Amino acid sequence: MSALTATAIAHPNIAFIKYWGNRDENLRIPANGSISMNLDGLFTRTSVTFSPNLKTDLLFINGKPAEQVALRRVSRFLDHIRGLAKTDWYTEVVSENNFPTGAGLASSAAAFAALSMAATAALGLKLTEQELSRIARLGSGSACRSVPGGFVEWQAGTCHEDSFAFSIAPPAHWNLVDCIAIASSGHKSTGSTEGHSLAFTSPLQLARVADTPRRLDKARRAILERDFATFAEIVEQDSTLMHAVMMTSTPPLFYWQPVSLEIMQKVSQWRAEGIPCCFTLDAGPNVHVITLSSSAPEITSRLSVIPGIQQVLQATPGGPTQLIEQ
Amino acid sequence: MSALTATAIAHPNIAFIKYWGNRDENLRIPANGSISMNLDGLFTRTSVTFSPNLKTDLLFINGKPAEQVALRRVSRFLDHIRGLAKTDWYTEVVSENNFPTGAGLASSAAAFAALSMAATAALGLKLTEQELSRIARLGSGSACRSVPGGFVEWQAGTCHEDSFAFSIAPPAHWNLVDCIAIASSGHKSTGSTEGHSLAFTSPLQLARVADTPRRLDKARRAILERDFATFAEIVEQDSTLMHAVMMTSTPPLFYWQPVSLEIMQKVSQWRAEGIPCCFTLDAGPNVHVITLSSSAPEITSRLSVIPGIQQVLQATPGGPTQLIEQ
Repeated sequence: MSALTATAIAHPNIAFIKYWGNRDENLRIPANGSISMNLDGLFTRTSVTFSPNLKTDLLFINGKPAEQVALRRVSRFLDHIRGLAKTDWYTEVVSENNFPTGAGLASSAAAFAALSMAATAALGLKLTEQELSRIARLGSGSACRSVPGGFVEWQAGTCHEDSFAFSIAPPAHWNLVDCIAIASSGHKSTGSTEGHSLAFTSPLQLARVADTPRRLDKARRAILERDFATFAEIVEQDSTLMHAVMMTSTPPLFYWQPVSLEIMQKVSQWRAEGIPCCFTLDAGPNVHVITLSSSAPEITSRLSVIPGIQQVLQATPGGPTQLIEQ
Repeated sequence: MSALTATAIAHPNIAFIKYWGNRDENLRIPANGSISMNLDGLFTRTSVTFSPNLKTDLLFINGKPAEQVALRRVSRFLDHIRGLAKTDWYTEVVSENNFPTGAGLASSAAAFAALSMAATAALGLKLTEQELSRIARLGSGSACRSVPGGFVEWQAGTCHEDSFAFSIAPPAHWNLVDCIAIASSGHKSTGSTEGHSLAFTSPLQLARVADTPRRLDKARRAILERDFATFAEIVEQDSTLMHAVMMTSTPPLFYWQPVSLEIMQKVSQWRAEGIPCCFTLDAGPNVHVITLSSSAPEITSRLSVIPGIQQVLQATPGGPTQLIEQ
């Protein structure tokens, strides 16, 4: 038998209502629902080859053999897909990002979304978007949100069957731009997977989770109605709620850097000046400044001159994970 | 009849377990108990003169007539004391601080502690320390903690009678030093009184309050046992819990400046190096770095070279509010 191969592309996503902490660590059933936007222009391209001639799984990220810990995570994930397809062939995975890895740009979300689609397509599994979203979640929670296109909601659910993401609006619905101020391209000190497991050591996590339905409703409605003022307020509060939990965990996780805080303050001032913009930070020091397309050049130019900012990326709402070769 | 006069001195205090939010705004009955240390070397000296010849209350702070809003607050407070002494004489209050006012150094705590003692003494009221602490609380909540000496606990209570502070250890109990990195001597944009009223707009405040007995027990025991490692962990977590509530209020209150965050990160590194130190921030950008006296010179010298730090004050555990002239 000859090798089975496929290639898929997925975008990372920026969460407006954040995922932090699991109800079930193993299945990555989240403590709360979340809402995000896929990021066009940023992508992971992943090629997968299942072959009877391989003696072990192989993983290459950006041209280099991956570390053992990353390989083990991918192997465990592939075991699940091999189980669905009833094969025991080992797999070569070749993945390329066009953006900095591991600096809070949700690289694992794009990686596991692309891997889910490429691997299941290579093995001839016919899956719905919802099924693919559930499988991607097993690799990295937020990967389930990179599977559908545009503006996406992940319903938390309570088990594998009901925890998946779906589009709430297509990419063209709203001309938002994410201007990403890259404060550091270095790898963060505590990865998201380890961080999630600390969430419930914070005395604030239960309160944050309990308040989530309010924030989901407010953010969803603001997106559907293109109400930027409401959107800005709830997105900033939600980001700070997640970092409040992180910073009060044991041990505490401080992802904010001094320059992150400086940008957060400037963004508030800019909004007070009348420019539609708001900040949100994932598990890293980069600041995502969300704005409307008409203000994106102004925001980008203001961010670019801040000392400590290495570059500013721009991303508009992106499409779903796509199969590009089989 | 001739004028009645008295002068008192009080220290500001630094809270290790913070006061944020009131159960009763008017009586300043706090949402949670708190623990603090008086700061020797920093003081407010307040002279009070009740006279039948005054046509209105007068207030001078650091040699200048105070703003109307400060005068009204002091007048309302004096009305309470005049009621106790059954007099309607107006009052001249002359207050001097030897430290920056309104930059998160608990200037109102020292001011109302000194004013309480000077005013009641001038009128011949004989009060216990507990009674004086209760009265000071009516002027500024944390002022009740500046009345007793050394290490102080404010039991939250539920009404005027049972909400007061008392010493849990005298100043000589533990050779802590508070090295205060002054990031700004400017007046903060939102004063504490206004901030307290926003506390319950944060989805996190109830969880913070509910968790307070655990933090009080841990901090009190660490102080009594002079256990710096435990002390450091709970003091930093408590500070961040308060700022988490502030930053997720509506509107959000960000008292941290980029340089504050920079110092917080450095303090964590220094502790990892083996230097006993921890950070805590009140409602302002200054960072209080608590250390043992043997490490105070090293901490002070490290803080002094950080760009953006205007000066570093040092304070050891201070005594109670004292009457110095009558």
